[in-house]
Amino acid sequence: MTRRLRLGMVGGGEGAFIGAVHRIAARLDDQFELVAGAFSSRPEVAARSGDALFIAPDRCYASWQEMAEREASRDDGIDVVSIVTPNHLHVPVAQAFLAQGIHVICDKPLGVSLEEGYALARQVRDSGCRFILTHNYSALPMVREARARVAAGELGEIRRIEVEYLQGWLSERLEITDNKQARWRGDPLLAGAGAIGDIGTHAWQLATFVSGMEPVSLRGELLTRVEGRRLDDEVSADMRYANGAHGRLLASQVAAGYLNDLRLRIIGSRASLSFHQQQPEQLIIHPQGANSYTVTRNGPDNKDATRALCRTPAGHPEGYLEGFAQIYREAAQVIRGESDAPLLPGIEAGIAGMKFIETVKASSARGGEWLAW
Amino acid sequence: MTRRLRLGMVGGGEGAFIGAVHRIAARLDDQFELVAGAFSSRPEVAARSGDALFIAPDRCYASWQEMAEREASRDDGIDVVSIVTPNHLHVPVAQAFLAQGIHVICDKPLGVSLEEGYALARQVRDSGCRFILTHNYSALPMVREARARVAAGELGEIRRIEVEYLQGWLSERLEITDNKQARWRGDPLLAGAGAIGDIGTHAWQLATFVSGMEPVSLRGELLTRVEGRRLDDEVSADMRYANGAHGRLLASQVAAGYLNDLRLRIIGSRASLSFHQQQPEQLIIHPQGANSYTVTRNGPDNKDATRALCRTPAGHPEGYLEGFAQIYREAAQVIRGESDAPLLPGIEAGIAGMKFIETVKASSARGGEWLAW
Amino acid sequence: MTRRLRLGMVGGGEGAFIGAVHRIAARLDDQFELVAGAFSSRPEVAARSGDALFIAPDRCYASWQEMAEREASRDDGIDVVSIVTPNHLHVPVAQAFLAQGIHVICDKPLGVSLEEGYALARQVRDSGCRFILTHNYSALPMVREARARVAAGELGEIRRIEVEYLQGWLSERLEITDNKQARWRGDPLLAGAGAIGDIGTHAWQLATFVSGMEPVSLRGELLTRVEGRRLDDEVSADMRYANGAHGRLLASQVAAGYLNDLRLRIIGSRASLSFHQQQPEQLIIHPQGANSYTVTRNGPDNKDATRALCRTPAGHPEGYLEGFAQIYREAAQVIRGESDAPLLPGIEAGIAGMKFIETVKASSARGGEWLAW
Amino acid sequence: MTRRLRLGMVGGGEGAFIGAVHRIAARLDDQFELVAGAFSSRPEVAARSGDALFIAPDRCYASWQEMAEREASRDDGIDVVSIVTPNHLHVPVAQAFLAQGIHVICDKPLGVSLEEGYALARQVRDSGCRFILTHNYSALPMVREARARVAAGELGEIRRIEVEYLQGWLSERLEITDNKQARWRGDPLLAGAGAIGDIGTHAWQLATFVSGMEPVSLRGELLTRVEGRRLDDEVSADMRYANGAHGRLLASQVAAGYLNDLRLRIIGSRASLSFHQQQPEQLIIHPQGANSYTVTRNGPDNKDATRALCRTPAGHPEGYLEGFAQIYREAAQVIRGESDAPLLPGIEAGIAGMKFIETVKASSARGGEWLAW
Repeated sequence: MTRRLRLGMVGGGEGAFIGAVHRIAARLDDQFELVAGAFSSRPEVAARSGDALFIAPDRCYASWQEMAEREASRDDGIDVVSIVTPNHLHVPVAQAFLAQGIHVICDKPLGVSLEEGYALARQVRDSGCRFILTHNYSALPMVREARARVAAGELGEIRRIEVEYLQGWLSERLEITDNKQARWRGDPLLAGAGAIGDIGTHAWQLATFVSGMEPVSLRGELLTRVEGRRLDDEVSADMRYANGAHGRLLASQVAAGYLNDLRLRIIGSRASLSFHQQQPEQLIIHPQGANSYTVTRNGPDNKDATRALCRTPAGHPEGYLEGFAQIYREAAQVIRGESDAPLLPGIEAGIAGMKFIETVKASSARGGEWLAW
Repeated sequence: MTRRLRLGMVGGGEGAFIGAVHRIAARLDDQFELVAGAFSSRPEVAARSGDALFIAPDRCYASWQEMAEREASRDDGIDVVSIVTPNHLHVPVAQAFLAQGIHVICDKPLGVSLEEGYALARQVRDSGCRFILTHNYSALPMVREARARVAAGELGEIRRIEVEYLQGWLSERLEITDNKQARWRGDPLLAGAGAIGDIGTHAWQLATFVSGMEPVSLRGELLTRVEGRRLDDEVSADMRYANGAHGRLLASQVAAGYLNDLRLRIIGSRASLSFHQQQPEQLIIHPQGANSYTVTRNGPDNKDATRALCRTPAGHPEGYLEGFAQIYREAAQVIRGESDAPLLPGIEAGIAGMKFIETVKASSARGGEWLAW
Repeated sequence: MTRRLRLGMVGGGEGAFIGAVHRIAARLDDQFELVAGAFSSRPEVAARSGDALFIAPDRCYASWQEMAEREASRDDGIDVVSIVTPNHLHVPVAQAFLAQGIHVICDKPLGVSLEEGYALARQVRDSGCRFILTHNYSALPMVREARARVAAGELGEIRRIEVEYLQGWLSERLEITDNKQARWRGDPLLAGAGAIGDIGTHAWQLATFVSGMEPVSLRGELLTRVEGRRLDDEVSADMRYANGAHGRLLASQVAAGYLNDLRLRIIGSRASLSFHQQQPEQLIIHPQGANSYTVTRNGPDNKDATRALCRTPAGHPEGYLEGFAQIYREAAQVIRGESDAPLLPGIEAGIAGMKFIETVKASSARGGEWLAW
Repeated sequence: MTRRLRLGMVGGGEGAFIGAVHRIAARLDDQFELVAGAFSSRPEVAARSGDALFIAPDRCYASWQEMAEREASRDDGIDVVSIVTPNHLHVPVAQAFLAQGIHVICDKPLGVSLEEGYALARQVRDSGCRFILTHNYSALPMVREARARVAAGELGEIRRIEVEYLQGWLSERLEITDNKQARWRGDPLLAGAGAIGDIGTHAWQLATFVSGMEPVSLRGELLTRVEGRRLDDEVSADMRYANGAHGRLLASQVAAGYLNDLRLRIIGSRASLSFHQQQPEQLIIHPQGANSYTVTRNGPDNKDATRALCRTPAGHPEGYLEGFAQIYREAAQVIRGESDAPLLPGIEAGIAGMKFIETVKASSARGGEWLAW
């Protein structure tokens, strides 16, 4: 390899949360060089942000449309763009860059409607470009390890899939304060969906990813617990699977006292497993009729493919950023054609997330009716 | 007080599990003296059991009917009887002793139908006797502490009640082996219900007890995961409460690798709490916007009423038997008229449990329809 | 067996802590009947205590000397006495009852000097009676399991034994308040030693019991952290073992915020184990090169001898009282000649405890010099 | 700021562990650009390593001596060098770069003797350059939080400082296999010291850093548990502090089953705290007489200075690499003169570490005699 991939970014200006995370993730394994950006729709914010990021002024753009065009015309133009805007722009921005033959790494959820998702999927297919959706939790070593163990049949027949994502930070109506994160997330036009989009899709993807199972039917309920709020802040869903297994998802941003409590349990006929993303170093296995044990990241009993995800030895905690960086590492591999990275979430995961949102919305609107998946 | 209460027992012969637990519970605080029993329907088992328990041979009865009559006619007859038979006998035995003016301590669930429950409730009311149902988990100090804190408004408005009771021991069809516990629990005639009766009612009572809330409606699903099994081995239910709160109950005896995993979480607008009966020494509180903290049994921050339940100082673990003993201690108090013991579960808890079973059965039969509670 | 053992008690009147524990422990398995006592040196306390315990007034004695004599002369006199007085009376009371041929169950430490311990040991040997010392922690199932696993070589060669017993309750000078527990424990004449006697001996016995190893040499330091206190409130010791292993003991009653934090870790060449008495349901094993696992009391992987100690199924927490009751259960077995109960602590454990105290005192006085054990 | 700092690296070629960690740490906050290196003494390894790191061939040096000279003579020469060689080269390499006016970031321990440490200290003082020692654990947010709380008096008077660092990976004689990490660490000429240097100095620095206290005297013991090993693989030390507090350090690389178990507990007169680096998201406080609570990284109750260390919100785990990156972030700040970064470990921490090693060696050689610190 003779050079790093040239990366651009749309969104992620001063004060943004997820943009900074993407940048760290891109840097961690040193396969990307951030060289261009449309960091903000406000020019002075865009400029200040670019400056702080050592971006050459001429590649610090006032609009993503301009950026897509100009970068495509440069010899040293970006290879790939990261989209870290509010949700309503994910699809339009992705389309603009794909149209220029630029690969896309996009934050989740995919967008604000399943329909625009399908349109994007078609464009991705036709573009010859890669589209990566940053469902970062699915790249954590112990999550991959869990998936491999389920696939290998260690749990026996899967009977129950329970996933939860609890946060408390929206217990009050933060979206009417100057909290930047809360403001756009609380605006239906910008976010498209509330808790279900922001964290529900993570939970959904995690459960699907680890179990390797999609349901045959689904019912759900969207709730708005905080008075005056314009979007859902809590969602629950029940799933039924073809093999008779049952699933349940609960996601809330109004669960007082919870921080970022994403947990997955899978109960099988022979063993159960549990994973908690706030303890990402470990995967706990409860076999029936034997001692429970803890599989430790990069510890004595990891699949080879899990070890390959680890940057530090066991006992040297990795966490959120390393999981996110793994998405970027695999993105680099697929963009360079070095690997298929079959576990890297892409447009299909994005479509599934949008479908999840729309199915739950529809079920909720009908009083929790079961709908086919 | 000049003497211990004289206690009789129906059921609980050699090899029984819960009978032995009741006897330890009765002894722990030294307020009962076991003096009579109909320990088994098999005479030689009854005799051997009585002998091992130091029961005088003439008070070791071949049938509970005989026991009820004969004890009632003695000057030193029993004050109270403990019923630890399979479920189908709970109500008939209770009725026989109540008819003789003998107080009753009965294992859960109340019986095998709501109808017999109502009949028993009427008889209890008319009898002037006390009827205690051994929902032992509700007498654990940290459970009582949780209830007091919820009642005091520490959680704010209750938004979600999540209760789970997971066991794995029936992952195989144990009921066709010589496992005595599994055999009667797996027989519809003797048990009346499967997991929903055996552990579902515990979970239900715990959630109701701590939250102080009963739902307005309920839907549920009964499942039989293990082929050939004649009763349910897993149950889930959703609840809706008048204040807009949601609830969910999951109980399974086929959750591989789980032992006796009864957990309750209550999520409020200001704080959440979690309790896990396998860690009965602690109650964890997660306030929004402040550090999570652990309330320790008999530790620095217990309500006075909680301290009164503790037999050992903080850090000297109490557990299952002490919780069970607390039921007996309070039973002694109410029988002697020393206390009202308002938190002691009685016939109402039993009725609620039967109603829970029947409502879930009905909802499950209708594909999970919401039913009024 | 045709009857319960008749038990007397010296000490343990109103407000006492450990006397109540002994009584519960004696009752739990129903092998003892408390029929006599000298519960207090204050006659009215003795009488009130006896009344509350349903003791016949004529067997409620004003002095233990009288009790020993009178009980020995009754046909239905006590078989065994429990000694739960302050430490300075352990040996004299034990001697008085042994002299009458009455078995003794005695709280720890053995007494206030090694010398009186040796005298007692001779008398025990000559008496034909059993002497049991209530080192209750060594009777916990997971402690016994740990011992069996060490003995079976599961850890490989033992390299390090680390035992800690931390409490915070004496962080202030409680012994000058009306706290009954603190008062006698803080009086050199009554207690003989401070933290080292009260909890240090427990830690010592636990380490010795589980490892099966006694050191060849020892050094230690006694500390009095709280100004004005007349006894030690913290002790540390280092041990060296014949096989080259090292040990360390730390016991403190001035460790702010700790409750009853008795922990043991044993590090071997192949695996390490850790046990924490506040989590008595589990024993954690860390093998080198394999997943750490948790052995659960009465769970899937217990030695048969461990299972025999369990009163409840796995997941139904036992704790402090059950461990204590196991001492009484085994005491009943040895008194009746039904079992040797080779793991039951007796006079040797008591002597070892006193020797530990005196060796540490001597080493501490010489600035932490190593002394032969 | 107009540009990133230009960074060179000595050591850290293919297969090295800590070199890769330093590079990630340097990249994480984007304040450094790795532009030069002497990655290996083997030319083809050096070249391959440089290539993989996108280093221009002409800045990929065959020796660190050459690198120091050549970089110093370039206009765009490095600002700072990271030294990630075996220990015996730390000081010579540092001296070579300091002599050229290049700042130094050096892995720990400082070197192989206190004497060379003093020489280096003088050179640092005279050089006008910054010297940073990567005691990464001291830059973890919860470690800094702990330090701030101790300094603020939250624990009251400090009574006991207990630090442990347990690993099991050297339970076998790995240094004679082809394990690169084990090989140089097991060679006295390259490593200078065994466990005491590799992990003992981390433990020492952590204890000193958080408590803010240095002992007045110290005794210690060095052990070699594994037959044939040429360096220590376990070390223990006791400390005495001017205020009467006691300390204890235990570090072992032959503790079977342990991964990277660095724990610190500080016991005070009012509260105690515990930190475990494998759970870096939390700091647990045990106040005497109040509920224990958990301070969460970037959670509700962090000092402002702690928050400033956090890259992700609470519940999004940071870990080892982020702590390491904080050292680099603060190194950039001090090199640029933007901040004093008073908590950043430098030459003094290095000297203290060497002094710790030599004092323990001396004490150990004299059978554990107390030596003045």
